[in-house]
Amino acid sequence: MNNFKLTSFLTSNVDLDEKMLNELIANFKIKHFRKGEYLLQQGEVCTNYFFIETGLARLFGINRVGKEHIIQFAPEGWFVSDRESTFFKQPSSYFIQAIEDTKAFLLDEQFILKLSESNPAFVEFNNKLLHNHIRNMTKRVYQLLSATAEERYLAFTKTYPDILLRVPQIMVASYLGITPESLSRVRKDLALKNFKK
Amino acid sequence: MNNFKLTSFLTSNVDLDEKMLNELIANFKIKHFRKGEYLLQQGEVCTNYFFIETGLARLFGINRVGKEHIIQFAPEGWFVSDRESTFFKQPSSYFIQAIEDTKAFLLDEQFILKLSESNPAFVEFNNKLLHNHIRNMTKRVYQLLSATAEERYLAFTKTYPDILLRVPQIMVASYLGITPESLSRVRKDLALKNFKK
Repeated sequence: MNNFKLTSFLTSNVDLDEKMLNELIANFKIKHFRKGEYLLQQGEVCTNYFFIETGLARLFGINRVGKEHIIQFAPEGWFVSDRESTFFKQPSSYFIQAIEDTKAFLLDEQFILKLSESNPAFVEFNNKLLHNHIRNMTKRVYQLLSATAEERYLAFTKTYPDILLRVPQIMVASYLGITPESLSRVRKDLALKNFKK
Repeated sequence: MNNFKLTSFLTSNVDLDEKMLNELIANFKIKHFRKGEYLLQQGEVCTNYFFIETGLARLFGINRVGKEHIIQFAPEGWFVSDRESTFFKQPSSYFIQAIEDTKAFLLDEQFILKLSESNPAFVEFNNKLLHNHIRNMTKRVYQLLSATAEERYLAFTKTYPDILLRVPQIMVASYLGITPESLSRVRKDLALKNFKK
């Protein structure tokens, strides 16, 4: 068996034999994106789910006054897509961009649907992905409503333990919905607290 | 055919004949909740999706310092649930409460899954509900990150045109993630702008 991250993701989430798994992986397109390149641009219809095999991407929007707001980071082993655009066949309101050189598997929605028809394990798999997405987004809404800057930062370090040193602080602040100055204060306070321990 | 809101919701979203539809509706439990009563309490596992037939409910959490934060309102014709809890069989982090006397249909997840096995239209229906949920939550994340208090309020009036006069201002402010004072200022400014038109 190959040692793709996608392979281990699939084997741990869907009940498939090795032959089917390898056929499946062979059917997925693989694409390389250079740092800064777009996986999806606002206004395009998103036809794929992206599984990040190596690298790092972000899903973000740009508001009326040109400011960027990051909805999600996607490091290795994460999915990223605009499911609204994919499912409802609507132009996306968002961008997906590689913030490191990135290798991604492109999972075509139609292909997933076709698989679901012949294999009930795939219905369950897709359901799990969708519910996981809802769980993450609901948590994020609740956190943006209720948590302090420090709580948000700590949650970020739990969700994305491996990307802290790979993402510019301005992007972390954008994801947290706080100013870079607030973020800098939070980090100083936390360092001080930890030092005193 | 009966004239439940749930009936028209189902007929416009799933391809079912009248017989099956009526059987279906007959299988759903209906329950009345008095104003203030809980459909779900934090710590319980949520086993149902609630379809609000009449009345109004809210999904909310209470943070560390006892403050309430509203994730979603559910007036007539809306679904409300904690899908994370239902799907992953985990104790809920949230509450669902009737804020008016409410009549709700209780849709059991196992029943929906059973239906999906015998009727592919139901897989599609469930997929649509899940994607709609993701769409709403993603929009809400993006809005909390990017929109001004006025923009949030205007979006609220579009999402929930019929509940403006049914919900106390403090709950609207809680949903918008702003202080009641900010909300009051936004409403005054908007009234002034509209008067000058």
